[in-house]
Formats: sequence, C-alpha cells, structure tokens
Amino acid sequence: MAKEEKEFVKEITPQSRDFSQWYVDVILKADLADYAPVRGSIVMKPYGYAIWESIQGELDRRFKETGVQNAYFPMFIPESILTREAEHIEGFAPEVPWVTEVGKEKLAERLAIRPTSETIIHHMYSQWIQSWRDLPMVLNQWCSVVRWEKATRPFLRTTEFLWQEGHTAHQTEEEAEARTRQMLEIYRSFAEEHLAIPVIPGQKTENEKFAGALRTYSIEALMGDGKALQAATSHHLGQGFARVFDISFLDADGQLKYVWQTSWGASHRLIGALTMVHGDDRGLVLPPRVAPLQLVAVPITTKKVKEEVLTRTRELAQRLGQRFRVKLDDREEQSPGWKFNDWEMRGVPLRLELGPRDLAAHQVVLVRRDTGEKISASQDGLVDAVGELLDNVQYSLYQRAGRFLADNTREAADYEEFQRVIEEKRGFVRAGWCGDGGCERTIKEETGATIRNIPLVGSEPAGHSCIRCGHPARAVVYFARAY
Amino acid sequence: MAKEEKEFVKEITPQSRDFSQWYVDVILKADLADYAPVRGSIVMKPYGYAIWESIQGELDRRFKETGVQNAYFPMFIPESILTREAEHIEGFAPEVPWVTEVGKEKLAERLAIRPTSETIIHHMYSQWIQSWRDLPMVLNQWCSVVRWEKATRPFLRTTEFLWQEGHTAHQTEEEAEARTRQMLEIYRSFAEEHLAIPVIPGQKTENEKFAGALRTYSIEALMGDGKALQAATSHHLGQGFARVFDISFLDADGQLKYVWQTSWGASHRLIGALTMVHGDDRGLVLPPRVAPLQLVAVPITTKKVKEEVLTRTRELAQRLGQRFRVKLDDREEQSPGWKFNDWEMRGVPLRLELGPRDLAAHQVVLVRRDTGEKISASQDGLVDAVGELLDNVQYSLYQRAGRFLADNTREAADYEEFQRVIEEKRGFVRAGWCGDGGCERTIKEETGATIRNIPLVGSEPAGHSCIRCGHPARAVVYFARAY
Repeated sequence: MAKEEKEFVKEITPQSRDFSQWYVDVILKADLADYAPVRGSIVMKPYGYAIWESIQGELDRRFKETGVQNAYFPMFIPESILTREAEHIEGFAPEVPWVTEVGKEKLAERLAIRPTSETIIHHMYSQWIQSWRDLPMVLNQWCSVVRWEKATRPFLRTTEFLWQEGHTAHQTEEEAEARTRQMLEIYRSFAEEHLAIPVIPGQKTENEKFAGALRTYSIEALMGDGKALQAATSHHLGQGFARVFDISFLDADGQLKYVWQTSWGASHRLIGALTMVHGDDRGLVLPPRVAPLQLVAVPITTKKVKEEVLTRTRELAQRLGQRFRVKLDDREEQSPGWKFNDWEMRGVPLRLELGPRDLAAHQVVLVRRDTGEKISASQDGLVDAVGELLDNVQYSLYQRAGRFLADNTREAADYEEFQRVIEEKRGFVRAGWCGDGGCERTIKEETGATIRNIPLVGSEPAGHSCIRCGHPARAVVYFARAY
Repeated sequence: MAKEEKEFVKEITPQSRDFSQWYVDVILKADLADYAPVRGSIVMKPYGYAIWESIQGELDRRFKETGVQNAYFPMFIPESILTREAEHIEGFAPEVPWVTEVGKEKLAERLAIRPTSETIIHHMYSQWIQSWRDLPMVLNQWCSVVRWEKATRPFLRTTEFLWQEGHTAHQTEEEAEARTRQMLEIYRSFAEEHLAIPVIPGQKTENEKFAGALRTYSIEALMGDGKALQAATSHHLGQGFARVFDISFLDADGQLKYVWQTSWGASHRLIGALTMVHGDDRGLVLPPRVAPLQLVAVPITTKKVKEEVLTRTRELAQRLGQRFRVKLDDREEQSPGWKFNDWEMRGVPLRLELGPRDLAAHQVVLVRRDTGEKISASQDGLVDAVGELLDNVQYSLYQRAGRFLADNTREAADYEEFQRVIEEKRGFVRAGWCGDGGCERTIKEETGATIRNIPLVGSEPAGHSCIRCGHPARAVVYFARAY
C-alpha cells in the first residue's frame, strides 16, 4: 500500500524574493486549487470554488438586473461551424482540442471543444431570430471552455477554465455599442465594489482585439509585482458574425437586416487577480464581500478556564453567524498561534479572539487581516461593530490598491525613460501612441510592454507625440508588461 | 440573404394520440430547449435553464446543510486514469468521446471527456487524504458530462447533460452507507417537496447497479404514460476504487486503511420528469416552487377603460412581485386569449386577470393552471391570497401525482397477468423476485420491464414467490418499463 511521494508547500516564498513562486505557494497552501493530472489544468478546491461562487452570484445578480437571461449551449462545436468565420478560427485554431473518436468508432466530422461559443450560439440565433420583436436577444452562460495555451499558470491561464460568456443580438449599431459599454461598466463596478480591485476601463488596439470583433473593451488591473492583468473583456462584434451565420431579421420598417452583436466574458482568473492584488507575505488577503469566511472565532482556553471560554465563543460565533460568514475554530489539537497563522494564510478578513481576561471584561479582541490591527470590542453590540469593521476593511483594501495603482502609473519623457521604467519599475506607463500597429509591435519586441488599452477617460492626445516614433499621438494609452 | 426553411411546432399533439410526440412538442413549444447541431444534444433555452437554476439552488442548499462542499475537477480524464478500474471502464467505454489532437498536433495520450468523475476525483483523493483527520471528504461538483448513447431524447438522455455529482470518502463502511442513504433521502424529499413528484426509494439489483459500485440506490418516478423514470441515484462504492486508486489513511488506531466511498447524482432529466408527471394537453404544468414564473398578470382592456386597467394591473403585479416571481404581460400586439394559451402552455401556475368590471368591484380573477378553476379575490389582502393559492397548487399537484402513482401500481397473481399488465396498462407492478439475475434478464427480454428497485419499504418476501420462476421470493420489487 505504498503512497507516492508528495510535495507539500511548507513555507510561503516572500514576494520580494520571487513573486511567481509566492503566487503558486499561496494558491496551493491556502487550498484554492491543486494541479490536476491534465497538462495546464487545475482542480478548484472547495475554498477556491467558494470564492468563485461569490463571484458568480454577484455578477449574475448584476447581469440579471439589466435583463440578461442564462442559457446553456453544448460544449462540442462541429468543425464546419467553428471554422465558418475566418478571423475567428484563425485566432483560435492552434489551441483547439478535437474529439475524433467515440468508443472505438471514428467520427465523420471532428468536434471541437469550445474555446468560446460565438459560433455555435450564432448558429442557433440564425434560427431563433426572425423579426425585430425577437430582439434584443441577451443571453449568458456559465460554463468551462478550453484553450491549449503554451505557458500555463493556476487561474491566470489554464487549459480548461471556468467563465461566463454573454452573447447578444440587437437591432442597431448604437444599441449594440451601448450594451458593450454597459457590460464593461458592470465588470468595472463589480471589480471595484466586490473585489476591491481598481481597474482601468478602455478600448483594446486593433492588434489586441478579439478575433472577429469590431472592437474590444477591457478592464485592466495592476498586480502586486507591477504586471498588468486583463480582468474582463466586452466586444462589439458588429455585423461580421451576423453575415457569416445569416442572422437577419425583418425590421419594423419592413426591411430585412443583419443584427448587431456583442459578447463579453470574465473568468476564474479573477481569483488570481484577487490573490495578486491584495495578498502579502503571510498569504491571501480577501476583501470581506468576496471572502467565503468573513470572520474566524478562536477561543483561547487555559486549563483553569476552558468550558466558559468555549461556551462564550460559541455563543458569539453563533450570533455573528446570523449576519456574517463565520467559522468557529475550536479544534483542540491545534494551538491558537497555529490557527492564527493558518487563517491569516487563507485571508479571512477578521479574527475574533476570546480568552479568560476577555471573558471577565465582557469583551473580545478583533484582529484585522489587512493591517494586523487589534481592536478590543464589547460583547454588547458586537454584531454592529463587526459589520462596521468589515465595511472598513473592504474600503481600505480598495483604497490601498488604488494608491498602489496611482503610485505605479507613470509618464515617460522619452523612449529611453519609457524603457527604463518598464524594465526597472514595471507598473503602467501612460504615453502617447501614433496609432500604428507596427510601432506597437516594435515597442512590444523592444520592451515586453503591450498597450493594455486606450482608456475611456484621459486618452486625449493633444500635445503628445508617440513615445516610440515621435509622430503626433493619436491617443494617450496605458502600456505595461502583462500576464 | 435567403433564410433556411424552419419548422415550428404549431400545435401540441394530444397525450392520448402520441405521448412521445406530445413530450417533444411541449419541450420545443414551451421554449425549454431546442435541438443543437451536435448529435443527441440540446440547447437549454432561458425558460428551461431557469427551471434548472431553481433545481440547482434548492438541491445545493439542501446539500450544504449536510456539510457538502462544492469543487471543480477537469472535464478531461487521461486514458490511463479512466481505465484503471476495470468494471467502471467496461461500463462506460463504448460511450466515451476521445480527444486525440490539439490544433494540428497528435496527443501522446488520449483524453476522455468525463462520463462521470469518479476516476479523476479519486486520483486527487489519493493525494489529499493521509489521515483520519482528513475524513470525511464530502465534495460535489455542478458540471456537464458526456455519454454517447444510441437513442437520445431531450433532457432524458442527451449526449451532453448538466448534472451534479457528489463524491465522498469515509473512515468506515457504516459512515459511507449512512451518507449514501442520506443523499438518497435528500433526493426523495427534494423531488416530493420541490418538484411535487412522488417517488419510490429503493435499491437497484446487481444487474442494474452503477459500474464499480458495491450497491446503488435510486428514486423512481412514474411518468404520465405509465413508464418509470430513474430520477436520481446514490451509490455506495465500498473500497473498490480506494484499492485501485490507493486512497489509504492512517486511522486513529495507528492502522493504515482504505477509505469507504460514495457517489451520487441528479441531472437535468428532472426537467423531463417535471414535464411528463404534471403536463397535460395544453402544455407544461409547473409546481409553484420550481416555476420560473409563479404568476402572470394579464390586463383586459377595452377601448373605453384602458389606462386605469393597465395602471391597476401594473400596481398589483408590482406588489405581488415583491414576494413571488411575477410577470406582467401588457403586450399590446397580442389578445388576452392568445396570452392565456401561451402562458398555460408554459405552465405558469396562476394567472391574474383584471378587466373593467374587476376594477369597479375592486377585485381580480385568479385562474389555476392545474385545474382551470377561476377564483375571484379582493384586491385587498391579495398577496396573502396568492400565497395560499400557490401552496394549494403545489400540494394538489403532489396529491394528484400521488394518486396516479397509487392507481398505477399493481400486483399480479401470475406471470400471465404480469405480462398483460405491463403490456396493456403499464405503470409499476409489485411482484416477488427470486433474486436471480438470469430470471431478471428473462423477464426483461419477454416483457420489456426491468426491476426499477427493491423498495426501502415493503419489500419483505414472506408468502411471495418469484413472478417468473415460482421459486420462493427473495424480495418484493417494483417492475416497469422505463425511460
């Protein structure tokens, strides 16, 4: 009954020593995920999945408020359908896994595992949409998709990943553009309010847009190591897919027209973003709104005073549990100190400690994960005090990340300084760009930085010239090295 | 811009003429699902998916109350892992799709698309479980799985289907058996309380058990045409997988032992069950608890009295909407009669009508979908009246289905009568069985009926002999033709 040798992460590598290794250590040690026996794939463990459930629940609620309906389309896409739109298949072809046989039989037509579902959904839309009365069609699905990428990394880029993908069809270009921007705004406000991650909303360049889209918008966040991360995208697809899939409708004016379309998505990479924006050398730091556990209660017993401390801690945990997500850690085999480390590593926003002295003083000690601050609080009115403190933690995490983003967004006087900043300081560099894709590619080759987006706010080029070629700037954009 | 010719279901075939066609008509016409361009696959449309969300939400809540945690495992299972347990792979091999290439490259090892996830989950359990302190491990995942079945049917048997699959590991046989039975009981109470579907809980025979299980339990329901449907299963896996995947732990007594395991699942075929248990010739009939819409409000305007009727109906819909799932149908282009038919077809439990005369009398008319009964109700206290009525509809649907089940559960004096009942009346036949698998197979060949299960209650064989061979019965069991 020999067990295989297993490797356990014993310590978390400090961020300053090796940020990449720190990230993987935290993911594994905080039980967010584990490596799966399929290349580039992870298993989402219960603690990681609970974060995903919070993300799902909150995004889904915000979607539905704007009239989004959920549906489910097959994971298999027949080759003839996947390859119909030329730019689209060109973008995804190298990453698509193909089912070629079932049992012992060869299939007549290969089936792709969906990398994204535009093609199969548009195939159905062409059957469902006949009249302007069928519009808008605003569907979303929660599912997993597969992209065989070369370099993989837990949550950020995995062979299979969990996400949502919205797909809409509209009567007019204006309506499609408005939906594209509306969903971008939902992603922005969700990231900032629920995940406490400040982001830059903006438009992707032609080089970086989605394969088959008219234009792509994104929100871009800044990780703790100064690298950018695309946190969600929203695409205006124009009428390209509609023409290829023949999605036409009889408009109110009696004309047969093609629909205007959008698609938009966010994935479990948001969990990676949460980790890298808020985490520290002790592990995860979770904003209270998204944290599976908001408070852990740890009784600190002595030989003399045990039952009373346990009873009181249980009572308080039970009371707090009616309003917050609370865990009572009354395991006897672990010391309080061990528990403190363990729950800090898992990023629980607040810890409640109760010992014999607190019992006598009718108080508890509350410890903030984000600052380490210890606060004595009366047992009376504890529910309100904890509520306020959680709001406070949520807000200060957002503030702190906002300061970090501001401190790490720089301007560069010339290309030399640009290169030095990208190389030495990382972060975002706001700089003028001439609008030429060749210039953009040269910058990428020379510095590793890409244009993250052309921000919705503050991209006016007046007075700026292109940081690389010196020609008049078409826009001021955000550059960064990115995940 | 030529459109393909499309076929729309114009009418619902009466159940008495062709139950199968009736079923497909209802699924398509009520917008639960549509056929997808992949063999045996469906698209779940928003109305069907909303039912699935209700099923998910309620089952998930009941699971979590018993300590179940959600997780997510990859959809790909390497061939070497899927084929490790002999009985298991023998059961699933012919139905498994294989990914053999990615982009233009052949894979070194084929990857199966999961037909169920015992193998990959147990592979991970062998790494996660070391000590009795790691037990029990009680995980569940919501996902889709794929089985390439010969005969397919929307929701009941589709190539890809949505489901949940729970997988647990325990210290002792007793604990695993208790968990197996606990989950069966959750499925039973969920089916009866939420879906208003009465079921027979019992144990599957050796012939019918899950590939690789020690024993399988199921809940069996009776459809409107008298055919049985297996609505959920719960398996005690024993230590078979644990030995093959080497899932061992150091017990509190210092001994290295194999874990005892269970798995259990329910799928979107429950939507098929809902349709076939409650539906009638006008379409779907949905129990209020699972219905995406519980009440539809239809204003009945005349040329003279229009605005007031609209305003009042809106106000009432808005008030009811705070407690129930309410839709206001104020479309001007459709007549009230057309709307009545449409919402009846979609199975909305209650309709509220408000016309000029109701306006004057300060009342509304409420119409029950299940009985067609019309009830005048005062606009005062309407919320409570609707709440009571919805409870009433939920209860009477369950009662009606219970009567149908009782009326269609028969005994047979001898094999001739057994054959006649199965052929002419369908339904369940309770009969003695000798316990021999050969005898069971003969009955299946001769009558098309299988042993649905050995019921948890009322299987005592005393005084019974086997309906086929006449030997003393080992148990009284439920026979039926089944989906």
